[in-house]
Amino acid sequence: MLKATNITWHDGQVRRQDRQRLLGQKGVTVWLTGLSAAGKSTIACLLESLLLERRRHTYRLDGDNIRHGLNKNLGFSPEDRAENIRRIGEVARLFTDAGVIILASFISPYRADRDAVRVNLGAGDFVEVYVKVSLLTAQNRDPKGLYKKAMAGEIKGFTGVDDPYEEPTRAEITLDTDRLTPEQSATEILAYLQDHGYLQA
Amino acid sequence: MLKATNITWHDGQVRRQDRQRLLGQKGVTVWLTGLSAAGKSTIACLLESLLLERRRHTYRLDGDNIRHGLNKNLGFSPEDRAENIRRIGEVARLFTDAGVIILASFISPYRADRDAVRVNLGAGDFVEVYVKVSLLTAQNRDPKGLYKKAMAGEIKGFTGVDDPYEEPTRAEITLDTDRLTPEQSATEILAYLQDHGYLQA
Repeated sequence: MLKATNITWHDGQVRRQDRQRLLGQKGVTVWLTGLSAAGKSTIACLLESLLLERRRHTYRLDGDNIRHGLNKNLGFSPEDRAENIRRIGEVARLFTDAGVIILASFISPYRADRDAVRVNLGAGDFVEVYVKVSLLTAQNRDPKGLYKKAMAGEIKGFTGVDDPYEEPTRAEITLDTDRLTPEQSATEILAYLQDHGYLQA
Repeated sequence: MLKATNITWHDGQVRRQDRQRLLGQKGVTVWLTGLSAAGKSTIACLLESLLLERRRHTYRLDGDNIRHGLNKNLGFSPEDRAENIRRIGEVARLFTDAGVIILASFISPYRADRDAVRVNLGAGDFVEVYVKVSLLTAQNRDPKGLYKKAMAGEIKGFTGVDDPYEEPTRAEITLDTDRLTPEQSATEILAYLQDHGYLQA
Protein backbone atom coordinates (compact mmCIF):
# COMPACT_ATOMS: atom_id res chain seq x y z
CA MET A 1 0.00 0.00 0.00
CA LEU A 2 1.10 3.59 -0.59
CA LYS A 3 2.38 5.67 2.24
CA ALA A 4 -0.36 7.89 3.57
CA THR A 5 2.06 10.83 3.52
CA ASN A 6 1.86 10.89 -0.28
CA ILE A 7 -1.79 11.70 -0.16
CA THR A 8 -3.81 14.88 0.05
CA TRP A 9 -7.53 14.45 0.44
CA HIS A 10 -9.67 16.83 -1.54
CA ASP A 11 -12.89 18.21 -0.19
CA GLY A 12 -14.90 18.22 -3.35
CA GLN A 13 -15.48 16.08 -6.35
CA VAL A 14 -13.38 16.33 -9.45
CA ARG A 15 -15.17 18.60 -11.88
CA ARG A 16 -15.28 18.89 -15.64
CA GLN A 17 -13.12 22.02 -15.39
CA ASP A 18 -10.45 20.00 -13.57
CA ARG A 19 -10.38 17.40 -16.31
CA GLN A 20 -10.26 20.07 -19.01
CA ARG A 21 -7.32 21.77 -17.29
CA LEU A 22 -5.53 18.45 -17.10
CA LEU A 23 -6.05 17.88 -20.83
CA GLY A 24 -5.58 21.47 -22.00
CA GLN A 25 -8.76 21.45 -24.02
CA LYS A 26 -12.52 21.74 -23.75
CA GLY A 27 -14.80 18.75 -24.10
CA VAL A 28 -16.97 19.00 -27.20
CA THR A 29 -18.96 16.79 -29.54
CA VAL A 30 -18.21 17.35 -33.21
CA TRP A 31 -21.12 15.71 -34.99
CA LEU A 32 -20.57 14.88 -38.66
CA THR A 33 -23.84 14.28 -40.50
CA GLY A 34 -24.43 13.61 -44.18
CA LEU A 35 -25.26 11.04 -46.81
CA SER A 36 -23.47 7.72 -47.07
CA ALA A 37 -20.22 8.25 -49.05
CA ALA A 38 -20.11 11.95 -48.17
CA GLY A 39 -16.73 11.32 -46.54
CA LYS A 40 -17.68 11.68 -42.86
CA SER A 41 -15.45 8.91 -41.53
CA THR A 42 -12.51 9.84 -43.74
CA ILE A 43 -12.67 13.42 -42.51
CA ALA A 44 -13.05 12.28 -38.89
CA CYS A 45 -9.96 10.04 -39.16
CA LEU A 46 -7.88 12.84 -40.65
CA LEU A 47 -9.07 15.30 -38.02
CA GLU A 48 -8.29 12.77 -35.28
CA SER A 49 -4.69 12.58 -36.52
CA LEU A 50 -4.38 16.37 -36.65
CA LEU A 51 -5.65 16.62 -33.07
CA LEU A 52 -3.31 13.88 -31.83
CA GLU A 53 -0.37 15.78 -33.35
CA ARG A 54 -1.48 18.73 -31.28
CA ARG A 55 -1.62 16.47 -28.21
CA ARG A 56 -5.37 16.72 -27.85
CA HIS A 57 -7.43 13.81 -26.50
CA THR A 58 -9.93 12.77 -29.13
CA TYR A 59 -12.17 9.77 -29.67
CA ARG A 60 -14.23 8.72 -32.64
CA LEU A 61 -17.73 7.29 -32.42
CA ASP A 62 -19.07 5.67 -35.55
CA GLY A 63 -21.07 2.70 -36.74
CA ASP A 64 -18.11 0.37 -36.24
CA ASN A 65 -17.86 0.83 -32.49
CA ILE A 66 -21.54 1.56 -31.77
CA ARG A 67 -23.67 -0.73 -33.92
CA HIS A 68 -21.77 -3.85 -32.83
CA GLY A 69 -21.71 -2.85 -29.17
CA LEU A 70 -23.99 -0.42 -27.35
CA ASN A 71 -26.65 -0.44 -30.07
CA LYS A 72 -26.45 -4.02 -31.27
CA ASN A 73 -29.99 -4.61 -30.02
CA LEU A 74 -31.43 -1.92 -32.31
CA GLY A 75 -32.71 -2.28 -35.85
CA PHE A 76 -33.65 0.27 -38.49
CA SER A 77 -37.28 1.04 -37.69
CA PRO A 78 -38.03 4.75 -37.14
CA GLU A 79 -38.17 4.16 -33.35
CA ASP A 80 -34.88 2.25 -33.36
CA ARG A 81 -33.18 4.88 -35.51
CA ALA A 82 -34.25 7.56 -33.04
CA GLU A 83 -33.08 5.47 -30.08
CA ASN A 84 -29.79 4.80 -31.89
CA ILE A 85 -29.05 8.51 -32.18
CA ARG A 86 -30.34 9.22 -28.66
CA ARG A 87 -27.95 6.70 -27.10
CA ILE A 88 -25.02 7.95 -29.17
CA GLY A 89 -25.88 11.46 -28.03
CA GLU A 90 -25.86 10.36 -24.39
CA VAL A 91 -22.49 8.65 -24.79
CA ALA A 92 -21.13 11.76 -26.51
CA ARG A 93 -22.43 13.84 -23.61
CA LEU A 94 -20.54 11.67 -21.09
CA PHE A 95 -17.31 11.93 -23.11
CA THR A 96 -17.79 15.68 -23.47
CA ASP A 97 -18.24 15.96 -19.72
CA ALA A 98 -15.07 13.89 -19.38
CA GLY A 99 -13.27 16.62 -21.37
CA VAL A 100 -12.74 14.59 -24.54
CA ILE A 101 -13.16 15.90 -28.08
CA ILE A 102 -15.64 13.48 -29.65
CA LEU A 103 -15.86 13.03 -33.41
CA ALA A 104 -19.19 11.36 -34.10
CA SER A 105 -19.77 10.23 -37.69
CA PHE A 106 -23.30 9.11 -38.38
CA ILE A 107 -25.61 9.67 -41.33
CA SER A 108 -28.20 10.75 -38.72
CA PRO A 109 -30.69 11.72 -41.41
CA TYR A 110 -33.45 13.19 -39.24
CA ARG A 111 -33.20 16.77 -38.04
CA ALA A 112 -35.30 16.14 -34.95
CA ASP A 113 -32.93 13.42 -33.72
CA ARG A 114 -29.85 15.62 -34.23
CA ASP A 115 -31.53 18.61 -32.63
CA ALA A 116 -32.43 16.52 -29.58
CA VAL A 117 -28.73 15.68 -29.17
CA ARG A 118 -27.87 19.37 -29.53
CA VAL A 119 -30.36 20.36 -26.83
CA ASN A 120 -29.19 17.56 -24.52
CA LEU A 121 -25.54 18.56 -24.83
CA GLY A 122 -26.18 22.25 -24.43
CA ALA A 123 -24.76 25.43 -25.94
CA GLY A 124 -21.15 25.22 -27.04
CA ASP A 125 -20.83 21.47 -26.45
CA PHE A 126 -22.31 20.43 -29.80
CA VAL A 127 -20.74 21.40 -33.12
CA GLU A 128 -22.78 20.17 -36.05
CA VAL A 129 -20.80 19.59 -39.22
CA TYR A 130 -22.81 19.06 -42.36
CA VAL A 131 -20.68 16.93 -44.65
CA LYS A 132 -22.48 17.91 -47.81
CA VAL A 133 -22.35 15.99 -51.04
CA SER A 134 -24.63 15.90 -54.03
CA LEU A 135 -26.56 12.69 -54.39
CA LEU A 136 -25.01 12.21 -57.81
CA THR A 137 -21.47 12.44 -56.42
CA ALA A 138 -22.34 10.09 -53.57
CA GLN A 139 -23.82 7.58 -55.99
CA ASN A 140 -20.78 7.81 -58.21
CA ARG A 141 -18.38 7.31 -55.28
CA ASP A 142 -20.42 4.47 -53.72
CA PRO A 143 -17.33 2.78 -52.19
CA LYS A 144 -19.32 -0.05 -50.65
CA GLY A 145 -21.79 -0.49 -53.52
CA LEU A 146 -24.67 0.43 -51.22
CA TYR A 147 -26.36 2.97 -53.49
CA LYS A 148 -26.31 0.43 -56.30
CA LYS A 149 -27.99 -2.16 -54.07
CA ALA A 150 -30.50 0.37 -52.74
CA MET A 151 -31.42 1.53 -56.22
CA ALA A 152 -31.85 -2.10 -57.25
CA GLY A 153 -34.23 -2.52 -54.30
CA GLU A 154 -31.89 -4.94 -52.48
CA ILE A 155 -31.61 -2.58 -49.48
CA LYS A 156 -34.75 -0.90 -48.17
CA GLY A 157 -34.97 2.41 -46.33
CA PHE A 158 -31.61 3.67 -47.61
CA THR A 159 -30.98 7.34 -46.92
CA GLY A 160 -31.01 9.39 -50.12
CA VAL A 161 -32.70 6.64 -52.13
CA ASP A 162 -35.96 5.62 -50.46
CA ASP A 163 -35.52 7.35 -47.10
CA PRO A 164 -35.09 11.12 -46.71
CA TYR A 165 -32.01 13.03 -45.59
CA GLU A 166 -33.03 16.20 -43.80
CA GLU A 167 -30.32 18.84 -44.25
CA PRO A 168 -29.18 20.78 -41.18
CA THR A 169 -30.59 24.28 -40.98
CA ARG A 170 -28.12 25.65 -38.45
CA ALA A 171 -24.93 23.60 -38.75
CA GLU A 172 -21.89 25.33 -37.29
CA ILE A 173 -19.84 24.13 -40.28
CA THR A 174 -20.90 23.09 -43.77
CA LEU A 175 -18.35 21.30 -45.91
CA ASP A 176 -19.07 21.01 -49.62
CA THR A 177 -17.24 17.80 -50.40
CA ASP A 178 -17.99 18.08 -54.10
CA ARG A 179 -15.44 20.87 -53.94
CA LEU A 180 -13.20 20.22 -50.90
CA THR A 181 -10.75 17.38 -50.39
CA PRO A 182 -11.07 15.40 -47.13
CA GLU A 183 -7.83 17.05 -45.98
CA GLN A 184 -9.28 20.51 -46.62
CA SER A 185 -12.46 19.55 -44.77
CA ALA A 186 -10.56 18.23 -41.74
CA THR A 187 -8.42 21.37 -41.69
CA GLU A 188 -11.52 23.54 -41.75
CA ILE A 189 -12.96 21.81 -38.68
CA LEU A 190 -9.61 22.08 -36.90
CA ALA A 191 -9.54 25.81 -37.59
CA TYR A 192 -13.05 26.14 -36.17
CA LEU A 193 -12.03 24.32 -32.98
CA GLN A 194 -8.95 26.51 -32.60
CA ASP A 195 -10.78 29.75 -33.33
CA HIS A 196 -13.54 28.93 -30.85
CA GLY A 197 -11.19 28.08 -27.99
CA TYR A 198 -11.79 24.34 -27.78
CA LEU A 199 -8.09 23.51 -27.96
CA GLN A 200 -7.33 25.23 -24.66
CA ALA A 201 -8.81 24.68 -21.21
CA MET B 1 -7.96 28.31 -42.40
CA LEU B 2 -4.67 26.88 -41.17
CA LYS B 3 -1.66 26.93 -43.40
CA ALA B 4 -1.23 23.56 -45.05
CA THR B 5 2.46 23.64 -44.13
CA ASN B 6 1.53 23.05 -40.49
CA ILE B 7 0.05 19.72 -41.31
CA THR B 8 1.42 16.21 -41.59
CA TRP B 9 -1.00 13.61 -42.86
CA HIS B 10 -0.81 10.25 -41.17
CA ASP B 11 -1.29 7.05 -43.07
CA GLY B 12 -3.17 5.12 -40.46
CA GLN B 13 -5.88 5.67 -37.96
CA VAL B 14 -5.14 6.81 -34.46
CA ARG B 15 -4.98 3.73 -32.25
CA ARG B 16 -5.64 3.06 -28.62
CA GLN B 17 -1.90 2.85 -28.01
CA ASP B 18 -1.49 6.38 -29.40
CA ARG B 19 -4.10 7.73 -27.01
CA GLN B 20 -2.55 5.88 -24.09
CA ARG B 21 0.88 7.30 -24.89
CA LEU B 22 -0.63 10.77 -25.05
CA LEU B 23 -2.21 10.31 -21.62
CA GLY B 24 0.60 8.35 -19.98
CA GLN B 25 -1.74 5.64 -18.74
CA LYS B 26 -3.65 2.57 -19.82
CA GLY B 27 -7.38 2.58 -20.32
CA VAL B 28 -9.15 0.41 -17.78
CA THR B 29 -12.56 -0.05 -16.20
CA VAL B 30 -12.51 -0.21 -12.41
CA TRP B 31 -15.90 -1.67 -11.53
CA LEU B 32 -17.05 -1.13 -7.94
CA THR B 33 -19.83 -3.51 -6.96
CA GLY B 34 -21.52 -3.96 -3.60
CA LEU B 35 -24.60 -3.31 -1.53
CA SER B 36 -26.22 0.09 -1.24
CA ALA B 37 -24.35 2.08 1.47
CA ALA B 38 -21.19 -0.01 1.04
CA GLY B 39 -19.35 3.19 0.15
CA LYS B 40 -18.80 2.64 -3.58
CA SER B 41 -19.36 6.22 -4.68
CA THR B 42 -17.41 7.70 -1.77
CA ILE B 43 -14.43 5.50 -2.60
CA ALA B 44 -14.73 6.31 -6.32
CA CYS B 45 -14.73 10.07 -5.60
CA LEU B 46 -11.67 9.80 -3.39
CA LEU B 47 -9.86 7.65 -5.94
CA GLU B 48 -10.74 10.12 -8.69
CA SER B 49 -9.07 12.90 -6.69
CA LEU B 50 -5.98 10.80 -6.08
CA LEU B 51 -5.71 10.05 -9.79
CA LEU B 52 -6.20 13.69 -10.79
CA GLU B 53 -3.35 14.65 -8.45
CA ARG B 54 -1.21 12.19 -10.37
CA ARG B 55 -2.38 13.83 -13.63
CA ARG B 56 -4.29 10.79 -14.81
CA HIS B 57 -7.46 11.12 -16.88
CA THR B 58 -10.32 9.52 -15.02
CA TYR B 59 -14.09 9.57 -15.33
CA ARG B 60 -16.80 8.27 -13.03
CA LEU B 61 -19.89 6.45 -14.19
CA ASP B 62 -22.65 6.06 -11.63
CA GLY B 63 -26.40 6.21 -11.24
CA ASP B 64 -26.38 10.00 -11.34
CA ASN B 65 -25.04 10.34 -14.86
CA ILE B 66 -26.44 7.09 -16.29
CA ARG B 67 -29.95 6.58 -14.96
CA HIS B 68 -31.04 10.11 -15.93
CA GLY B 69 -29.41 9.95 -19.33
CA LEU B 70 -28.43 6.88 -21.34
CA ASN B 71 -30.60 4.52 -19.32
CA LYS B 72 -33.55 6.74 -18.50
CA ASN B 73 -35.79 4.48 -20.57
CA LEU B 74 -35.04 1.45 -18.38
CA GLY B 75 -36.86 0.28 -15.25
CA PHE B 76 -36.03 -2.31 -12.65
CA SER B 77 -37.36 -5.54 -14.15
CA PRO B 78 -34.79 -8.34 -14.44
CA GLU B 79 -34.48 -7.67 -18.20
CA ASP B 80 -34.05 -3.94 -17.67
CA ARG B 81 -31.49 -4.47 -14.92
CA ALA B 82 -29.48 -6.67 -17.25
CA GLU B 83 -29.76 -4.15 -20.10
CA ASN B 84 -28.77 -1.37 -17.68
CA ILE B 85 -25.50 -3.11 -16.83
CA ARG B 86 -24.92 -4.17 -20.44
CA ARG B 87 -25.14 -0.57 -21.69
CA ILE B 88 -22.91 0.71 -18.90
CA GLY B 89 -20.41 -2.00 -19.80
CA GLU B 90 -20.46 -0.90 -23.44
CA VAL B 91 -19.91 2.73 -22.49
CA ALA B 92 -17.07 1.69 -20.19
CA ARG B 93 -15.55 -0.28 -23.05
CA LEU B 94 -15.58 2.80 -25.30
CA PHE B 95 -13.94 4.94 -22.59
CA THR B 96 -11.38 2.22 -21.93
CA ASP B 97 -10.59 2.11 -25.65
CA ALA B 98 -10.27 5.90 -25.49
CA GLY B 99 -7.53 5.38 -22.86
CA VAL B 100 -9.52 6.71 -19.90
CA ILE B 101 -9.54 5.18 -16.41
CA ILE B 102 -13.23 4.56 -15.72
CA LEU B 103 -14.54 4.28 -12.17
CA ALA B 104 -17.95 2.61 -12.44
CA SER B 105 -19.98 2.46 -9.20
CA PHE B 106 -23.07 0.32 -9.46
CA ILE B 107 -24.65 -2.14 -7.06
CA SER B 108 -24.73 -4.54 -10.05
CA PRO B 109 -26.03 -7.38 -7.89
CA TYR B 110 -26.01 -10.20 -10.45
CA ARG B 111 -22.79 -12.07 -11.14
CA ALA B 112 -23.82 -12.98 -14.69
CA ASP B 113 -24.29 -9.32 -15.65
CA ARG B 114 -20.90 -8.33 -14.23
CA ASP B 115 -19.17 -11.30 -15.82
CA ALA B 116 -20.66 -10.38 -19.20
CA VAL B 117 -19.06 -6.94 -18.87
CA ARG B 118 -15.75 -8.58 -17.93
CA VAL B 119 -15.82 -10.82 -20.99
CA ASN B 120 -16.82 -7.95 -23.27
CA LEU B 121 -13.97 -5.74 -22.03
CA GLY B 122 -11.37 -8.47 -22.15
CA ALA B 123 -8.41 -9.49 -20.02
CA GLY B 124 -6.72 -6.65 -18.17
CA ASP B 125 -9.31 -4.05 -19.09
CA PHE B 126 -11.74 -4.92 -16.29
CA VAL B 127 -10.81 -4.67 -12.62
CA GLU B 128 -13.62 -5.83 -10.38
CA VAL B 129 -13.63 -4.27 -6.92
CA TYR B 130 -15.92 -5.87 -4.39
CA VAL B 131 -16.85 -3.14 -1.93
CA LYS B 132 -17.85 -5.50 0.83
CA VAL B 133 -20.00 -4.57 3.77
CA SER B 134 -22.08 -6.64 6.16
CA LEU B 135 -25.80 -6.20 5.71
CA LEU B 136 -26.03 -5.07 9.31
CA THR B 137 -23.47 -2.29 8.80
CA ALA B 138 -25.17 -1.20 5.56
CA GLN B 139 -28.54 -1.08 7.31
CA ASN B 140 -27.07 0.92 10.16
CA ARG B 141 -25.40 3.42 7.80
CA ASP B 142 -28.46 3.74 5.52
CA PRO B 143 -27.62 7.36 4.54
CA LYS B 144 -30.65 7.73 2.28
CA GLY B 145 -33.07 5.76 4.46
CA LEU B 146 -33.52 3.21 1.69
CA TYR B 147 -33.06 0.08 3.80
CA LYS B 148 -35.63 1.37 6.23
CA LYS B 149 -38.12 1.91 3.41
CA ALA B 150 -37.31 -1.47 1.84
CA MET B 151 -37.75 -3.29 5.16
CA ALA B 152 -41.06 -1.49 5.63
CA GLY B 153 -42.11 -2.76 2.20
CA GLU B 154 -42.21 0.73 0.68
CA ILE B 155 -39.53 -0.17 -1.88
CA LYS B 156 -39.76 -3.49 -3.68
CA GLY B 157 -36.89 -5.50 -5.12
CA PHE B 158 -34.24 -3.81 -2.99
CA THR B 159 -30.86 -5.52 -3.10
CA GLY B 160 -30.00 -7.13 0.21
CA VAL B 161 -33.58 -7.01 1.47
CA ASP B 162 -35.90 -8.75 -0.99
CA ASP B 163 -33.54 -9.08 -3.96
CA PRO B 164 -30.26 -11.01 -3.82
CA TYR B 165 -26.73 -9.68 -3.99
CA GLU B 166 -24.43 -12.22 -5.62
CA GLU B 167 -20.90 -11.79 -4.27
CA PRO B 168 -18.04 -11.75 -6.76
CA THR B 169 -16.08 -14.99 -6.89
CA ARG B 170 -13.00 -13.63 -8.65
CA ALA B 171 -12.81 -9.92 -7.86
CA GLU B 172 -9.36 -8.45 -8.41
CA ILE B 173 -9.77 -6.44 -5.19
CA THR B 174 -11.98 -7.01 -2.15
CA LEU B 175 -12.37 -4.14 0.30
CA ASP B 176 -13.84 -4.94 3.69
CA THR B 177 -15.48 -1.62 4.51
CA ASP B 178 -16.53 -2.80 7.95
CA ARG B 179 -12.82 -2.51 8.68
CA LEU B 180 -11.34 -0.03 6.16
CA THR B 181 -12.01 3.70 5.90
CA PRO B 182 -12.99 5.02 2.47
CA GLU B 183 -9.55 6.67 2.27
CA GLN B 184 -7.85 3.33 2.92
CA SER B 185 -10.04 1.65 0.32
CA ALA B 186 -9.27 4.28 -2.32
CA THR B 187 -5.56 4.00 -1.55
CA GLU B 188 -5.70 0.25 -1.95
CA ILE B 189 -7.20 0.53 -5.44
CA LEU B 190 -4.63 3.18 -6.37
CA ALA B 191 -1.84 0.85 -5.27
CA TYR B 192 -3.31 -1.94 -7.42
CA LEU B 193 -3.42 0.34 -10.47
CA GLN B 194 0.18 1.43 -9.91
CA ASP B 195 1.46 -2.07 -9.26
CA HIS B 196 -0.23 -3.45 -12.36
CA GLY B 197 1.12 -0.78 -14.71
CA TYR B 198 -2.09 1.08 -15.46
CA LEU B 199 -0.61 4.48 -14.55
CA GLN B 200 1.89 4.35 -17.37
CA ALA B 201 1.39 3.93 -21.12
